[in-house]
Amino acid sequence: MTETREVTAERGPFFFKRELGKEEGEYKLVGREIERPDAFSKIMGLTKFTADRLTEDVCFGKIVRSKYPHALIKRVIVDEALQIKGVLAVITAKDVPGENQIGYAIPDQPLLADKKVRYIGEPIAIVVAENEYAAEKGVEAVKVEYDPLPAVFDPLEALKPEAPKVHEKGNVALTTIIRKGDVEKGFKEADVVVENIYYTQRQEHAYLEPEAAIAYPEGDGIRVVLCTQSPFLVREFVSRVTGYSQSKIKVIGAPAGGAFGGKDDMGPMVASKAALAAIITKKPVAIILDKEETFVASNKRHPAIIRYKSGATKDGKLTAVEIEIIYETGAYANRSPFVLWRATVHSAGPYVVPNAKVDGKSVYTNKVFSGSFRGFGDPQIHFAAEQQMDELAEKLGIDPVEFRLRNVLKEGTRTVCNQLLEESVGMEETLKKVAEAANWKKKREELKKYRKGSKVRGIGVACAYHGISTSRGVPDWSAAAVLLNEDGTITYRSTITRLGQGSLIGHAKIVAEILDIPLEWVHIEEPDTSASPNARPTHGSRGLMTGGTAAADAALKLRRTLIKLASELLNCDEKNVKLENGKAFCALDPSNKIEFSELAKETYQRGYQPAYYGFYFVPRRYFDPETGLGVAYCVYTYIANIVEVEVDKETGEVKVLEAYTGADVGKAIDPGLIEGQMQGALAQGIGYAISEEVAFNDGKIINPNYTDYIIPTVKDVPRKVKVVIIEKPYSSTAFGAKGVAEAALIPTAPAIANAVAHATGVRVRNLPLTKEKVCFKLKEGKK
Amino acid sequence: MTETREVTAERGPFFFKRELGKEEGEYKLVGREIERPDAFSKIMGLTKFTADRLTEDVCFGKIVRSKYPHALIKRVIVDEALQIKGVLAVITAKDVPGENQIGYAIPDQPLLADKKVRYIGEPIAIVVAENEYAAEKGVEAVKVEYDPLPAVFDPLEALKPEAPKVHEKGNVALTTIIRKGDVEKGFKEADVVVENIYYTQRQEHAYLEPEAAIAYPEGDGIRVVLCTQSPFLVREFVSRVTGYSQSKIKVIGAPAGGAFGGKDDMGPMVASKAALAAIITKKPVAIILDKEETFVASNKRHPAIIRYKSGATKDGKLTAVEIEIIYETGAYANRSPFVLWRATVHSAGPYVVPNAKVDGKSVYTNKVFSGSFRGFGDPQIHFAAEQQMDELAEKLGIDPVEFRLRNVLKEGTRTVCNQLLEESVGMEETLKKVAEAANWKKKREELKKYRKGSKVRGIGVACAYHGISTSRGVPDWSAAAVLLNEDGTITYRSTITRLGQGSLIGHAKIVAEILDIPLEWVHIEEPDTSASPNARPTHGSRGLMTGGTAAADAALKLRRTLIKLASELLNCDEKNVKLENGKAFCALDPSNKIEFSELAKETYQRGYQPAYYGFYFVPRRYFDPETGLGVAYCVYTYIANIVEVEVDKETGEVKVLEAYTGADVGKAIDPGLIEGQMQGALAQGIGYAISEEVAFNDGKIINPNYTDYIIPTVKDVPRKVKVVIIEKPYSSTAFGAKGVAEAALIPTAPAIANAVAHATGVRVRNLPLTKEKVCFKLKEGKK
Repeated sequence: MTETREVTAERGPFFFKRELGKEEGEYKLVGREIERPDAFSKIMGLTKFTADRLTEDVCFGKIVRSKYPHALIKRVIVDEALQIKGVLAVITAKDVPGENQIGYAIPDQPLLADKKVRYIGEPIAIVVAENEYAAEKGVEAVKVEYDPLPAVFDPLEALKPEAPKVHEKGNVALTTIIRKGDVEKGFKEADVVVENIYYTQRQEHAYLEPEAAIAYPEGDGIRVVLCTQSPFLVREFVSRVTGYSQSKIKVIGAPAGGAFGGKDDMGPMVASKAALAAIITKKPVAIILDKEETFVASNKRHPAIIRYKSGATKDGKLTAVEIEIIYETGAYANRSPFVLWRATVHSAGPYVVPNAKVDGKSVYTNKVFSGSFRGFGDPQIHFAAEQQMDELAEKLGIDPVEFRLRNVLKEGTRTVCNQLLEESVGMEETLKKVAEAANWKKKREELKKYRKGSKVRGIGVACAYHGISTSRGVPDWSAAAVLLNEDGTITYRSTITRLGQGSLIGHAKIVAEILDIPLEWVHIEEPDTSASPNARPTHGSRGLMTGGTAAADAALKLRRTLIKLASELLNCDEKNVKLENGKAFCALDPSNKIEFSELAKETYQRGYQPAYYGFYFVPRRYFDPETGLGVAYCVYTYIANIVEVEVDKETGEVKVLEAYTGADVGKAIDPGLIEGQMQGALAQGIGYAISEEVAFNDGKIINPNYTDYIIPTVKDVPRKVKVVIIEKPYSSTAFGAKGVAEAALIPTAPAIANAVAHATGVRVRNLPLTKEKVCFKLKEGKK
Repeated sequence: MTETREVTAERGPFFFKRELGKEEGEYKLVGREIERPDAFSKIMGLTKFTADRLTEDVCFGKIVRSKYPHALIKRVIVDEALQIKGVLAVITAKDVPGENQIGYAIPDQPLLADKKVRYIGEPIAIVVAENEYAAEKGVEAVKVEYDPLPAVFDPLEALKPEAPKVHEKGNVALTTIIRKGDVEKGFKEADVVVENIYYTQRQEHAYLEPEAAIAYPEGDGIRVVLCTQSPFLVREFVSRVTGYSQSKIKVIGAPAGGAFGGKDDMGPMVASKAALAAIITKKPVAIILDKEETFVASNKRHPAIIRYKSGATKDGKLTAVEIEIIYETGAYANRSPFVLWRATVHSAGPYVVPNAKVDGKSVYTNKVFSGSFRGFGDPQIHFAAEQQMDELAEKLGIDPVEFRLRNVLKEGTRTVCNQLLEESVGMEETLKKVAEAANWKKKREELKKYRKGSKVRGIGVACAYHGISTSRGVPDWSAAAVLLNEDGTITYRSTITRLGQGSLIGHAKIVAEILDIPLEWVHIEEPDTSASPNARPTHGSRGLMTGGTAAADAALKLRRTLIKLASELLNCDEKNVKLENGKAFCALDPSNKIEFSELAKETYQRGYQPAYYGFYFVPRRYFDPETGLGVAYCVYTYIANIVEVEVDKETGEVKVLEAYTGADVGKAIDPGLIEGQMQGALAQGIGYAISEEVAFNDGKIINPNYTDYIIPTVKDVPRKVKVVIIEKPYSSTAFGAKGVAEAALIPTAPAIANAVAHATGVRVRNLPLTKEKVCFKLKEGKK
């Protein structure tokens, strides 16, 4: 294995100190909590989500969906639907002018099923009508004649040779591997070995806003407005499906009412249908899913079956792991190659493990396809890895925090993929700080004695790490644009989208900090593929780290121009020109100054360049898919959660009473936004741990609504949440920032399971920890 | 006088030859006529002009206008109007949150009149209502109490000390001057001297599409869609009136159904009113003028009174000019400083005149304000200058073409402002080629004998020159953006607007030529102030010359990147990499090649910059306003028109039978578009020459409609028009292009007047040459 590491852009805190001439403590915006500029419009309901943008002339597209989990399509009869007043068109696979293919990693998924359906809810046709009512009537009137096939719903069944084949080539969509060291030797060296099987469930994103896209034919092109995590990916798919060149497609990223990965996968699918309908009918067409459709037909978090064997010496050092991972991808592969790969490269948790053998499989079944979901494969694997850690600690008689500290990744150590970690590794400090905040040692002792009627309490810990941005050999990058206006204000553009996370607010803070102007002078434009180069997707917790560093690049270019110009105007050497508070002045004589608005006017009058694109390229890396060894991600965020739970031994109810969540985020551009992200991730993790599960009967989802699919309410969130932010800056990014959006979710479920074990003595290895399961385990007795 | 000349960017044909490695004859798009990409949508009525973009929720603003030419406003009573169902607001001067000021060069013009009105039709209030009917009722219901003042309607009257003052500081808005050589001495050296007074009238732009703007409140900002010639100027004015910072205002330039300078001036005024109404009512508001409003209240071409004295030696050399110019600006100065200045610096025509004394005055009257109109001050002054040339020639017994050729500006000569012309001076060649095309000598002889009943024929010539782009010391510049998409297509952005002239098509051709890709791979985006740096206005025939050179700059940057990348991919030295027909190949082995789409994908994958801003800065220049000497414009377009007319001596009717129009355009990026521009300009010049005149009675326009204001129809346009294109490339611009949009209009009226004089022996020095005036002159007899 060759290991290459090349920092293409030095952009870390040291660079900024040199470039801005400021110590960190002197930053005015970076590192400080601010009031969100978009808070007012959100609270007042003024934010225009996609479905708020319907124009009077818009038509509606509704989807005809499969009623069978596995069947051949014999015929689609549309005549009756076309008779309905207001119905303009019924679009089927044969009407697709480009490729009828929306497979992400593998071309296995049609936009509209033609020969075969593979899950209940799969799109077969689009009915376009002048109003929603007619479109719905149209959907009812379309007759699909099926030839049902035997179906397979369980991934272990699907792996059997006699199983019905979901796809021609068989039911294994893909595999992953890690071969590091000598696992047999490792287990021989171990004094204790723990082996268990873990099961995790399908989780629904449960965003408030369902998937929605409006496509407008415009001139010889098309404009698509939608809630998406990647406007450019949407453009690529719309281009593929419609045959339009990319330059003729303009994609606008509207704010999203929740995304969590779901809109990364679903955006291109919904947008392609709306664009297709608009092109065929030559009218603006909106496709807005209803909540049941989102449940039935949108991607879910991969259910997993994980066999996990770990060994450690009696002085508490991990010696080996052997892991088999099965991720159920459902009817289509979608993001599975990346989800399963992420799970694989993170499979040992944030620990040094000298010997590892990992095998991953993504398996097809006749259920709705799996895909991106906050954590992207990491919550499942950490659910296993972090319970293993507790069991090893218990067997060795070492405190779980202490046991972890003996094994955590540090600078100079290597990951399970043998990646050398050179910098920004804050796992140890994060775990220590969170344990300290939670008063871990004391509580761990005290709570074991807590008993109030049937109620017992426990405290549990779990760690995690999470590679930031997209990966697998191809270097990630991002882009942004700043335009200096003639009044000194800044127009900022990025195609990072607004999912509620506030990433673009972070970008604006970075721009304002670099130029030393008030934040309100930076106006954030809507993401638009025709107006900005590709910032790449808003996923993998990369929006701020990569997009914000591109913003910094653009702002630095402008800063240098302004300093040059000010030097000329103030007759002051460039090295003495300071930008401060919307002014430029000469350090030797601060009264020799010029307002930013004047500076901007002079920029235009004197022919200085007023607008810049900024780019960020993450360091290149090498990863060998044959061995699973190499540099998986350029940098990682490290997370530790500690939760205190109360378990009712009569009912099996688990309640999280307190939570402590900490992350090494590199540099907190906005601690308030980070706290918001971590609280949100924790709540979503609690739902994942305790109540959420998409349930099936013969391939049909039986709880496609919020009455039967239970997400946490404000009452299920702990009364006390403490967020701890650790900063181990990364040298390649703006001010050293890494990502945090997914972080706190990942170790939530294992921390809860570990706390339940602490409270009750029984261990639930099957998510979610519902009352039924906990009761059953308690009755079954220890183990 | 200091004379500075500095070529900031070498971008002429030699540069391109070196850079692209192609001879001119090898260009695939530049210099070749193509089918307009927007022709189909224009012809089919699919192009969305501003008023085609109304959304269902849009409200309407209608204007309450002054009924007096000069009066104090005592009170504006709005109560009754507010009672009308559907009326949302009546906005008056006191409601303006920013500055109530839309003066362009001088702050003399309120957006809404507050204390005083200065012309009939001046805006006083805006009634905003849910529908047009209610808005109109509201306008009728607003009561304005006036205190009438004495008014002045004639510029010569206005110059008298006892005249009513239109503005406090008096009726002279501004003055201009040229003092070159010794005029007295010049006239002493002259063998003949000719002195006359010329009168030109107010011309209406007469565009099909009236002024229109729709303003949408969006988030904490506002979006304005309108037909404009300068989106960024609109933004500046909207910012001034509303108090919003520029970054919060997004201006979209919709295609215009005609502009001709009118939308340069009116865009900011209509947009500011719509934005104001939208901000106050918090609703989208459209303001769409009707045709009568456009006649009554929009800027017109300045009427002029020009006293012109010229002298020449008997061997046909000009010795001196002495010129007094009065341009009537009406109620407000608006663009007058620039219009009058342009007239002044072009006042001697395209000839060498060693001694010159020129005095210009812009005079206020109580009529609708004057402003930008195709030619921008040059048609009036050339109407005088070019008749003077004919009269001198006649007196000297020299053929008018020959007389002009003895005096034309050439390389190495100096203009009336003493500007040394170093390059791209094609006056001589243009005049020769046009005379040749028209068969001048033969016709000049033959036609004098033509007599058919009362009808006589004549042929006349006139030349002109026209500085390209904006000027007066501040260097002009422009900007553009190219984005390489992942499929190899290009998204192109400029804020040059679409007035029908096709400038952006020229930009796209330049981009495609430089990258050597098919034109249809370049997609032109709508001008948007938030997405592109300022390309500056679409006026002064500068759209292609400056904007197109900025496009070239962006395309060249991308070209260099692609060559670098291709060199890496093809393992071929950069200097041997060729781009051709959407491919890159190695000149040493043409089979070693890569498709553009692959190259684009690799650009993204390998971290090469895929998007570039391009800029163009015209060479800096010095002009001394005290003497009127210096470099007025960086470069000039030179024009010659020859027309054959038939005059009915009974009715006085003048018909143009044939026209020959030629221009030195530097480099014809698209000969077809240039021919279109020149034919259109000629037609508009014929209207100006023969029939168009805005008529008044006591300050009230009495022909505000196309029944009484006569524009040429297809029957008034000559059956034969021959366009001659001369190319004297300019070294600073893309491929050497200059501008042509205004050119052919400028010498049309004097060519017609000269032809009428040739046909009839009488000379009409008062535009337009209506039947009545021609009859009167004929009856009056020669002179």
